[in-house]
Amino acid sequence: MAKTKVAILGFGTVGGGVADVLAARRFADIEVTHVYNRDYTRKLSRPQAKKLPRTVIWTDDINVILKSDVDVVVELIGGLEPIEGWLKKAIAAGKSVVTANKQLIAYRGAGLEKLAAKKGVSLLYGAAVAGGVPVIPGALQGIGGDEIVRISGIVNGTCNFILSHMEQGAEYAEVLAQAQKLGYAEANPSADVDGYDARAKLCILSRVAMHAELNPDEVPTQSISKVSAVDFHYAKELGCTIRQVSRAQVQDGVVHARVGPMVVPTESPIAWSHGTQNMVVTSGRFGGDVVFSGHGAGAHPTAVAVVSDLLAVAQQCGVVHQPVRKRAVVGEFLAPHYLRFVVSDKPGIVSAIAGALAKVGANIDSILQRPGYPKDRLPFVVTTEPCLTSVVERAVRSIAKMDCMLEKPLCLQMLRIEDKAED
Amino acid sequence: MAKTKVAILGFGTVGGGVADVLAARRFADIEVTHVYNRDYTRKLSRPQAKKLPRTVIWTDDINVILKSDVDVVVELIGGLEPIEGWLKKAIAAGKSVVTANKQLIAYRGAGLEKLAAKKGVSLLYGAAVAGGVPVIPGALQGIGGDEIVRISGIVNGTCNFILSHMEQGAEYAEVLAQAQKLGYAEANPSADVDGYDARAKLCILSRVAMHAELNPDEVPTQSISKVSAVDFHYAKELGCTIRQVSRAQVQDGVVHARVGPMVVPTESPIAWSHGTQNMVVTSGRFGGDVVFSGHGAGAHPTAVAVVSDLLAVAQQCGVVHQPVRKRAVVGEFLAPHYLRFVVSDKPGIVSAIAGALAKVGANIDSILQRPGYPKDRLPFVVTTEPCLTSVVERAVRSIAKMDCMLEKPLCLQMLRIEDKAED
Repeated sequence: MAKTKVAILGFGTVGGGVADVLAARRFADIEVTHVYNRDYTRKLSRPQAKKLPRTVIWTDDINVILKSDVDVVVELIGGLEPIEGWLKKAIAAGKSVVTANKQLIAYRGAGLEKLAAKKGVSLLYGAAVAGGVPVIPGALQGIGGDEIVRISGIVNGTCNFILSHMEQGAEYAEVLAQAQKLGYAEANPSADVDGYDARAKLCILSRVAMHAELNPDEVPTQSISKVSAVDFHYAKELGCTIRQVSRAQVQDGVVHARVGPMVVPTESPIAWSHGTQNMVVTSGRFGGDVVFSGHGAGAHPTAVAVVSDLLAVAQQCGVVHQPVRKRAVVGEFLAPHYLRFVVSDKPGIVSAIAGALAKVGANIDSILQRPGYPKDRLPFVVTTEPCLTSVVERAVRSIAKMDCMLEKPLCLQMLRIEDKAED
Repeated sequence: MAKTKVAILGFGTVGGGVADVLAARRFADIEVTHVYNRDYTRKLSRPQAKKLPRTVIWTDDINVILKSDVDVVVELIGGLEPIEGWLKKAIAAGKSVVTANKQLIAYRGAGLEKLAAKKGVSLLYGAAVAGGVPVIPGALQGIGGDEIVRISGIVNGTCNFILSHMEQGAEYAEVLAQAQKLGYAEANPSADVDGYDARAKLCILSRVAMHAELNPDEVPTQSISKVSAVDFHYAKELGCTIRQVSRAQVQDGVVHARVGPMVVPTESPIAWSHGTQNMVVTSGRFGGDVVFSGHGAGAHPTAVAVVSDLLAVAQQCGVVHQPVRKRAVVGEFLAPHYLRFVVSDKPGIVSAIAGALAKVGANIDSILQRPGYPKDRLPFVVTTEPCLTSVVERAVRSIAKMDCMLEKPLCLQMLRIEDKAED
């Protein structure tokens, strides 16, 4: 059997993980022949480097890879430039590509896929979303026959680590610091906590599962950094918790999509994920809800996704293609909303808030005020019946101007359990 | 584009579901041209029959299908004979096969796969396990790079319906009757409740995920019919519930496998499944636990799996193949055990039970006796520290002979949570 020759671009954490997995599994049909890395000499002493065949050619010149006879380029560097150009050249040279690069696939995936189809090579990116959780092959291959109308996911492990730990009573800043210490969060955590990482993954899922091509920049994001420990107390009273949810829904030719902290029922699958786990729920017109869950990141789970894609390329297994359409994104959802205010208490506040909500036509579903908070800095919560986020936000903007408001009010979408098992 | 011509064998519930899904999705590259059914005329008036192209040829002669120019045979009849022979002939005639037939794949899959490989056609059976939950494509394609060492699953919706309803306080017979009324259980429920259906599915999962070929007849099964409402009360005190679990684990070249009711921690993913939902947890050496969950049965979820396979065949997407080895099955597990006794109470019983367990070297972990039961028919529970099932069963057999025992003691394996998210 002719071996499939593989070049690894980027021998960092995941690259090392790929070396571990390949060394352990010893697939007869896969051979790493090249590794590209800047200043690669510092990598040679890593134990994982020693797991590669001795014949591997290390280089810091991408042209060595592009001009070589490798069959597959495994790209584990990340970012748009110069990667896009490199991979286009690789595809043009007849090489297949396996990548874990979510930004690249979210922003430039459509173009790369066209190029790959034209050249008759594979472009696989199972590792780009939810690492070791096979939601991309599952959506493409396993439920490709269904018409997926909704995706809800927890696809950012950092946010899930932070929020599931805040659930235990800690404050945001404290848990973020802990996550940074453990290596789960970057020094600048914005890409994670502000939702940009999750947004890219949501757009990839939208394409593979709903065949809807979105512009990631059009998907509204909301930071988790404004969620406070008190919100978990109130969420608990509502039978809920809070997670960073990435959701998208096809309706009448547009896609409603949003990434941000949301209030989710404790019995919803979305609430099951703890720590850095990832979870994606797809909702199909025919098959109902399907849940995929597991370790979304880390060297080895991500390496499993990469190596699984490599196997598919080596065995020339194609991927089911379905026609993809560009879709406009709408950030609106018809949903109940959770509004948390922090006020210096005085008579008439609830009445004023109720008035502002009534003015936009938003009905109050519940008002919660837990005892034990100081009256001069009182957090309390109002939930609304289902209404459009933009409408609630309009009311919240006017409420925010009230003298008694000590903080900008927090407005979160509340997720409902829409598909139950038949019991 | 040349259309892939499809023959459906068996136009029952799932066959109708396939017609529904195909009519809704209107794939340009798939066309049903033939339907085989005994006495098919009674099927023609079904609304789903009218969703098929008018040109479809209906027949009750399998040779019409085998001699036709169809590219794919979709087998939805079930059972070993005469199906195996028919599908062998279809494969020999160069036709691909998509089937939902779990018994056939569990018992004869290896031979059929060899034949299909030889003839260069596809044999896909995503619908054979967990219906609409893409665990088979997920295991083959998505986590094929990992080394899966353990599978735990809830793959029989009938048992899960019964047990998750018993969790609410009802007795077995009562819930079984309800399940039969709702159409979730057969008049003769043995294949489901005694574990034969789940066993076939476990063997298929073992092959696709662990590359271990098992003889289904070697996998021990335990019926759920001896589980009583009282066991759910005691399980709850242990922070657990009870589910029919199908588990398999590779160790030192043998596979430990078993199907039966087991005591599972409430916070384990296995306990999440309610009603007729299915759930499979694969544990990989590198990627850790991956959870797949959703609707395991029903016309439409199963049809989604069938149609997804059809898409893969139509687009000539291959499936990753890995070398499969025959493995001997051992029913043993090193596990804590749950023992429930019903006795006519008198002094010395606990001491005698403890003695019998000590004699085989099984350590008691806890003794539970809830108040409120009559002394002359007292159910109580002993749990053991991890030990081999056969060893505990030996002690239980000797305990069963005690005069005070009013029922055969119930001995269940207890599942532990072995892989936790890093939090």
